[in-house]
Amino acid sequence: MHVTYDALKQFTAEAFVHAGLSAEDAATGAEVLAMTDAWGIYTHGTKLLRGYLRRLKAGGLRAKERPVLAGEGLAWALVDGNSSLGMVTSVFAMQAAIRKARQCGIAYASVRNSCHFGAAGYYAWLAAQEGLVGLSMANDKPSVAAPGSRGGITGSNPIAYAVPAGKHRAILLDMSVATVAGGKVYAARTRGEKIPATWLVGGDGKPTTDPSGYPEVGALQPAAGHKGYGIALLIETLAGLLSGAGVTHGVGNWLWDDGTPPTNHGAAFIAVDTDAIMPAGKFTRRVEAMVDEIHNAPRVEGVDRIYVPGEMEWDRYDLAMKEGIQLPPDVVTSLQDAAKMTGLDLTDLAR
Amino acid sequence: MHVTYDALKQFTAEAFVHAGLSAEDAATGAEVLAMTDAWGIYTHGTKLLRGYLRRLKAGGLRAKERPVLAGEGLAWALVDGNSSLGMVTSVFAMQAAIRKARQCGIAYASVRNSCHFGAAGYYAWLAAQEGLVGLSMANDKPSVAAPGSRGGITGSNPIAYAVPAGKHRAILLDMSVATVAGGKVYAARTRGEKIPATWLVGGDGKPTTDPSGYPEVGALQPAAGHKGYGIALLIETLAGLLSGAGVTHGVGNWLWDDGTPPTNHGAAFIAVDTDAIMPAGKFTRRVEAMVDEIHNAPRVEGVDRIYVPGEMEWDRYDLAMKEGIQLPPDVVTSLQDAAKMTGLDLTDLAR
Repeated sequence: MHVTYDALKQFTAEAFVHAGLSAEDAATGAEVLAMTDAWGIYTHGTKLLRGYLRRLKAGGLRAKERPVLAGEGLAWALVDGNSSLGMVTSVFAMQAAIRKARQCGIAYASVRNSCHFGAAGYYAWLAAQEGLVGLSMANDKPSVAAPGSRGGITGSNPIAYAVPAGKHRAILLDMSVATVAGGKVYAARTRGEKIPATWLVGGDGKPTTDPSGYPEVGALQPAAGHKGYGIALLIETLAGLLSGAGVTHGVGNWLWDDGTPPTNHGAAFIAVDTDAIMPAGKFTRRVEAMVDEIHNAPRVEGVDRIYVPGEMEWDRYDLAMKEGIQLPPDVVTSLQDAAKMTGLDLTDLAR
Repeated sequence: MHVTYDALKQFTAEAFVHAGLSAEDAATGAEVLAMTDAWGIYTHGTKLLRGYLRRLKAGGLRAKERPVLAGEGLAWALVDGNSSLGMVTSVFAMQAAIRKARQCGIAYASVRNSCHFGAAGYYAWLAAQEGLVGLSMANDKPSVAAPGSRGGITGSNPIAYAVPAGKHRAILLDMSVATVAGGKVYAARTRGEKIPATWLVGGDGKPTTDPSGYPEVGALQPAAGHKGYGIALLIETLAGLLSGAGVTHGVGNWLWDDGTPPTNHGAAFIAVDTDAIMPAGKFTRRVEAMVDEIHNAPRVEGVDRIYVPGEMEWDRYDLAMKEGIQLPPDVVTSLQDAAKMTGLDLTDLAR
């Protein structure tokens, strides 16, 4: 299905309004999801709308609640999401971090009683869009092994950062601490294919090339072994332990678990105001020079570009804004379900 | 050679005094290096003393200079190391971050005109020792490839964090963004062995199992590919771009390059005051519960322990404090050279 960014955002916002959200919160949630699709990250865009609608209906997500500041200091804020939409809470928290960073140079907002927040990169980019360096992270129900464990110890715990880059688009990295996304393992299972031995451990905790038991059995392998595991625990510290949110197995699975109770995800957002530390413009000139240097560095034969994180996404974004977004079949199926749940007409969406 | 921690620290401090440092700065540098050996990280402990002494003699490190606050705000500090010993500058900067975090909840100190700072983990642990979460990172001369590059794009850019853990020892991760340390590749070269295809790229930028050209030719592979590369650029942002330090190829190699000019390494330190955000004790109880949960999680058959980051180092530390430190031969050789350079007697060191 081929759609425009605006139509996709509009449809998503209307669906959220149908589920009981205010127009403003619906627009916030819709922008996060549509922007993620524009970046070509279809696993974390409007494909998730259906799941959020289900949870809003079941009550684990509360349409009428709003995030509040549960505590604050000069350079920190503690946000209680009140189980409202994770994207609404996360935008609220990053805005608090940006506001305080402008006063203090750096600020940290931790979040409790949130839910799955879509793509971590969106919130980091919110900061970069306003000229600040942004970091964004969240915990999740365990699905990733630790060295020596049988089964998941940490969530796939996404972490993202964005850096304003002057004449270039913002540097933007959004990664999980697992070697690969669970969706890639599941796709191999669906196709009956083997997987590399670095992706998954089986029920015995040992590396396996057989995805047929996933996700019921086994766990994803941490990226770079103890390094990915270690970063997962840093994220757990800033997003979970220090916010009062659920930690590891205390976090619910937003998609598969019973939709009635809140998931109590934690998240953390950090903003750094470069203008406070360096004369305006000097920082971005330095970023520009580094990006230019990387672009001009010697390449492997046959490679025509060394990418800076985010450039693939920005290329897709430019194309999406110019020519629209070609939604993959799994996203379309999900949106069809969302349309059924809300009584909206999906044919309005396709141009 | 078998030594006590105290004797090793004393010898190292005396060597620094001989090189012109004040007793206080010498003690700071010595503590960082001896503590690193006590953790069993012999690649980054007193083995480095010889190299620092050479650079102090050549003038690229300035024995009589001290770090200064070149700028500050509520929650940030910009430290100019004035090319004094990297460990002295880094302790100064982390102490500034801790002081400001106690006022603001979080604080960030960036550093320019520094040099190689030893093990990143030491400074993170400084914060944890005072009850704060600490992060520490630095840039370095490029030695790590990016996906598609021929040659190094970023330094091995160490990053460390530490979390106070109540009844447990502090969680402590210290990692580089490369798959493995260059020293491991070089050791395989010395032994004439092949290496795994995930460690190194050759002069053509393609993965190789042949270490015989390293380090003259080729570059280390980033840990987990684009993820390690992306984190390297985050470190470059906070430690290099935003401090005014050298960036990528603008940083000198402290060990192999001409020792006369400063290397202009950058570094960054972040401290988070958990007591500002949560009632005293609540945070550490939550950390304790998470660590207990990990210790009690199901294990792979034959594995008797799932380690939390830092536990291997703390086990070695406990043994070092009880029975002394068994220095490996390469460290002893380096200390012999340091003794020759300073006229100190190494036999005083062995008990």
